[in-house]
Amino acid sequence: MDELGLAARNHGFPLEMLREPLTPTGLHYLLIHFDIPAIDAATWRLQVGGSAFTLAELQARKRVTLPVTLECAGNGRALLEGERAESQPWLIEAVGTAEWTGTPLAPLLRETGLVDGAAEIVFTGADHGVQGGVEHVYQRSLSLEDALRDEVLLAYEMNGEPLPAQHGFPLRLVVPGWYGMTHVKWLQRIEAVPEPFTGWQQTEAYLIDDVPVQRMLPRSLLVPPGIPDFLTRERFADSGRQTITGRAWSGQGEITRVEVSDDGGATWADAELDAPLGEFAWRGWRFAWDATAGEHELCCRAGDSAGNVQPLTATWNHGGYCNNAVQWVRVKV
Amino acid sequence: MDELGLAARNHGFPLEMLREPLTPTGLHYLLIHFDIPAIDAATWRLQVGGSAFTLAELQARKRVTLPVTLECAGNGRALLEGERAESQPWLIEAVGTAEWTGTPLAPLLRETGLVDGAAEIVFTGADHGVQGGVEHVYQRSLSLEDALRDEVLLAYEMNGEPLPAQHGFPLRLVVPGWYGMTHVKWLQRIEAVPEPFTGWQQTEAYLIDDVPVQRMLPRSLLVPPGIPDFLTRERFADSGRQTITGRAWSGQGEITRVEVSDDGGATWADAELDAPLGEFAWRGWRFAWDATAGEHELCCRAGDSAGNVQPLTATWNHGGYCNNAVQWVRVKV
Repeated sequence: MDELGLAARNHGFPLEMLREPLTPTGLHYLLIHFDIPAIDAATWRLQVGGSAFTLAELQARKRVTLPVTLECAGNGRALLEGERAESQPWLIEAVGTAEWTGTPLAPLLRETGLVDGAAEIVFTGADHGVQGGVEHVYQRSLSLEDALRDEVLLAYEMNGEPLPAQHGFPLRLVVPGWYGMTHVKWLQRIEAVPEPFTGWQQTEAYLIDDVPVQRMLPRSLLVPPGIPDFLTRERFADSGRQTITGRAWSGQGEITRVEVSDDGGATWADAELDAPLGEFAWRGWRFAWDATAGEHELCCRAGDSAGNVQPLTATWNHGGYCNNAVQWVRVKV
Repeated sequence: MDELGLAARNHGFPLEMLREPLTPTGLHYLLIHFDIPAIDAATWRLQVGGSAFTLAELQARKRVTLPVTLECAGNGRALLEGERAESQPWLIEAVGTAEWTGTPLAPLLRETGLVDGAAEIVFTGADHGVQGGVEHVYQRSLSLEDALRDEVLLAYEMNGEPLPAQHGFPLRLVVPGWYGMTHVKWLQRIEAVPEPFTGWQQTEAYLIDDVPVQRMLPRSLLVPPGIPDFLTRERFADSGRQTITGRAWSGQGEITRVEVSDDGGATWADAELDAPLGEFAWRGWRFAWDATAGEHELCCRAGDSAGNVQPLTATWNHGGYCNNAVQWVRVKV
């Protein structure tokens, strides 16, 4: 019942909307650890070391817009076999791609002197609660090197609108290529620390055998063809040639290949890749499928320029993280 | 796993956002039977009997904006005890209130001659799939009398913006006071029928012992106080006097009373009602709570001008509909 409460409260992305290159704001996945905080933008300040910035001051700085794919590190958790990792029970729908607009983090860190002698930069949100028996506000850190990457943004707009409350209003961190837990929402404070940060969300959660979860593994998803059954989401499609489309992404490198199978992974054929949407956004692909009468198990798998390929099955881990095993879509033709 | 898939795909309303009188668009509950259809507004037409209307033609007609609370008829389904009603497993979060803008339906029915000899008016959406083994597009009917009520709208805006795809773009029916299944999304066609409509969604679903589910029963929800535990959503609050707030609604009449209990329903005290937001929208309320150290079971119950009061427990029914039993919130002070 606890997991059901989380599933009802958090929001998944409906897969048919993979047809859109950018996810409409209300359909982007949402994973909210505690409550959505109520923040008054007029009195809100971002503390950066000893300095404080108003939202207007941040908006007056260099402005960058990037399409970025975000995926929850727990995506696929409920499909892992083995002992149960009790948390938000995602199947495969914890993803979304938006255009995030904000100001680059690195110049702000340099101006405020936070780079001197820092081992890590710690980001503190306003969401507050209890997890694993420990009361805390949501905090995550990045190594100084990762924090200084050009593409890291302090974002105040999503798809050209002010951040919605549920996506971190008035300001969130965006770390392109990384799983969702890194993109701290409702930012309050940025500080440098001389030793690695040991907050709960950094050292108790988001680890696989003590190795921190960081960049997204490659994954591809397809738009389920035909029409669905309400309850099972099984699909019914007409026979004949049709185009299967989908999107693929990786935080490890460029997507270089997507393959499709209609026989449950026994045989594979290459899909055609669309032009990239951006270095940190999912990449569209299409595949001409000759649908023959009968039952099919459609699946797709992505590979990236770092040599990673999606597995057909995934191995269980304690937190249920990083399950990038292929999507299976049952279709009756 | 089927129910989990539905829970991940459909969206619940996070209860802390009860603090807002209008639900931000991306946080309104969503129940989508099949897939979100892709509709091109430029070529879309609404068929009304033998006439066809463009979106611009509908927007040029009389324009009305109403705040309306929508609740899924299956809200509370997963909390019913007894045999399992297998469907979207809502706990208590399938609700939202938006300002819907559109044109009244009644004049359109009269102009197009659909009122003459009609028993019912049938509304056809564009969403298409299989439910209960029957392939169909989503269709629901209203009696002519209900369809002609002043407040029934053909809505093309939600909270001052064009309808989002997931809420029925470009046009949906809004029938204030009724459960969500009535508010047909992605409207394609409106027609009159001389006999009661017998489509699947009308005569196989949304019935309790053959009686159609129609208007919302009274329900109240409170903003869970203090801070949450991530997994259990149990709350931790400080001791002392604090204000508990919430909202209550009914499709049967005006909300006339809300009571609050902090001892699991053993004793009750009246909450103070805010001014109404509108005839068809939830009504805010507040309650001064003296939080004493210990564990509390907070709950609230609403009563309406038709004499209905929320029950403490609900009786199971085949489809898991209309469970308006009170919300229970465990708080540790």
